Amino acid sequence: MSATKLAIVGVGKIVRDQHLPAIAANPDFDLVATASRHGTVDGVASYGTIEALLEAVPEVQAVSLCMPPQYRYTAAYAALNAGKHVFLEKPPGATLSEVQDLVRLADSKGLSLFASWHSRYAPAVEAAKSFLASTKINSVHVIWKEDVRHWHPNQDWIWQAGGLGVFDPGINALSIITHILPRALFITKATLEFPENRDAPIAADIQFSDVTQLPVHAEFDWRQTGKQSWDIVAETEAGQMVLSDGGSKLSINAEQTPVQPEREYPALYERFAEIIKAKTSDVDLAPLMHVADAFLLGRHKFVDSFFD
Amino acid sequence: MSATKLAIVGVGKIVRDQHLPAIAANPDFDLVATASRHGTVDGVASYGTIEALLEAVPEVQAVSLCMPPQYRYTAAYAALNAGKHVFLEKPPGATLSEVQDLVRLADSKGLSLFASWHSRYAPAVEAAKSFLASTKINSVHVIWKEDVRHWHPNQDWIWQAGGLGVFDPGINALSIITHILPRALFITKATLEFPENRDAPIAADIQFSDVTQLPVHAEFDWRQTGKQSWDIVAETEAGQMVLSDGGSKLSINAEQTPVQPEREYPALYERFAEIIKAKTSDVDLAPLMHVADAFLLGRHKFVDSFFD
Repeated sequence: MSATKLAIVGVGKIVRDQHLPAIAANPDFDLVATASRHGTVDGVASYGTIEALLEAVPEVQAVSLCMPPQYRYTAAYAALNAGKHVFLEKPPGATLSEVQDLVRLADSKGLSLFASWHSRYAPAVEAAKSFLASTKINSVHVIWKEDVRHWHPNQDWIWQAGGLGVFDPGINALSIITHILPRALFITKATLEFPENRDAPIAADIQFSDVTQLPVHAEFDWRQTGKQSWDIVAETEAGQMVLSDGGSKLSINAEQTPVQPEREYPALYERFAEIIKAKTSDVDLAPLMHVADAFLLGRHKFVDSFFD
Repeated sequence: MSATKLAIVGVGKIVRDQHLPAIAANPDFDLVATASRHGTVDGVASYGTIEALLEAVPEVQAVSLCMPPQYRYTAAYAALNAGKHVFLEKPPGATLSEVQDLVRLADSKGLSLFASWHSRYAPAVEAAKSFLASTKINSVHVIWKEDVRHWHPNQDWIWQAGGLGVFDPGINALSIITHILPRALFITKATLEFPENRDAPIAADIQFSDVTQLPVHAEFDWRQTGKQSWDIVAETEAGQMVLSDGGSKLSINAEQTPVQPEREYPALYERFAEIIKAKTSDVDLAPLMHVADAFLLGRHKFVDSFFD
């Protein structure tokens, strides 16, 4: 199969840092065009909108959608409707219903839709999953605490309704635990803290359970200065497992497990090539469904205003 | 097929008003037991918990779960696990994830799970659906405004996190529009008003769209005194359609369409019998998914405290 002609929509930091190197290193894709309000890629034809791109470059076979989630449905619909495979950055949309609608459309057109969860491809995730499958889990604690001023400086969209707030990083944790835990989780209790001047939460405290009443406690906080935490700690019958640094390190009973180098986005594009070849889609809504459930079931508490 | 031996869990107002008469009139079901903290049914064996009921009356073949949604998953899981078909009052659960988990369990056990949406069986709903399928719709306006003090006096659970607040009646409107409109909807904008002393909204203003950019505007309000409204108004190329009184009356261009008498719950139990016979489930999550999306995407606004 010759390389799939790919376009990127929404050229920002994540595209420059992650997508472009992963695409450049993957012989299955050939980047032929971009669409973005501001960003461009050297040497690649650029357009102001996806509609202009689709009209000007009909040979495009697939598009990666990397704009904020509030704008993703319209672009994904246009791309699928024009017969293109679609890669969705995370989260796959601003609402669950719109993503369901895209799944239906992709199915009806025989196209591949990929809801990507990059953290599931972090280096130590599969080893953590194997370990947890080999023992009995007693409890899980998820600590996802970072400094929003450092990681998302002046990103207004992230604070708007639909921008997810602290669930933007938190959904990475959810994408990992829904992958590595043996049974489906559901939320039993949650508290979401909204800054008085913002429409998205700055912190969340969530209790999950599963059918065996496994206690899973997640703490998301965007006000963390100093040491940053992206850790999942499981107490098990075989001892304590710590999956740290966003899935990139694993220790069991304080002993570090050797892992391969980080290659989340290269793995995502390999997966995208694989589902295009297999004529299937890969859309797991579970992480976004838990976020929606947290908003639905959670107490909403207002806290101090937040200023960048 | 002889009558299915049925148990009811959560004996309250909706059971006495709706379930009992519908079951009594349906030869496919035979009510043999109830479980409830307080309520009982004359002449029917009663238990304090579903676990006690399942142990004491193993011949039960199906259960109707009518307790508040926060307690439904555990009961549904116990019932399915014991090999019983399950009828879920609306909403089917406190979270989407838990209902998904029940769907998996029912499938794996070959049992029927029914997520009931009684308003879909209101007398004029099918006629409204047929009319809308015959024309082009220009816009839809949903007005669901009622007096919570009258309809839900001192029902504390409805104001707790997970109790849905004004979406408890509003989800009836959502169950109708997701049934009668020709294409999938998704929310583009929402505002939810929470009383300062409550964890569930008292009002919501929601904008939906579909792939053709059909504007659908829903207003839910629990502060309505005087005339109560449960209306869906569609402006179409064939004129104005008004589906009023919660789906029970239909007028097209101000001309009233004749409809059959109301029989929502009888129709629900007919449907439940049908899916048991066909060994299938009937779980449409769309109405609850829209509620979760409204919480996820919506602005959360605090308003005056509410006292019963």
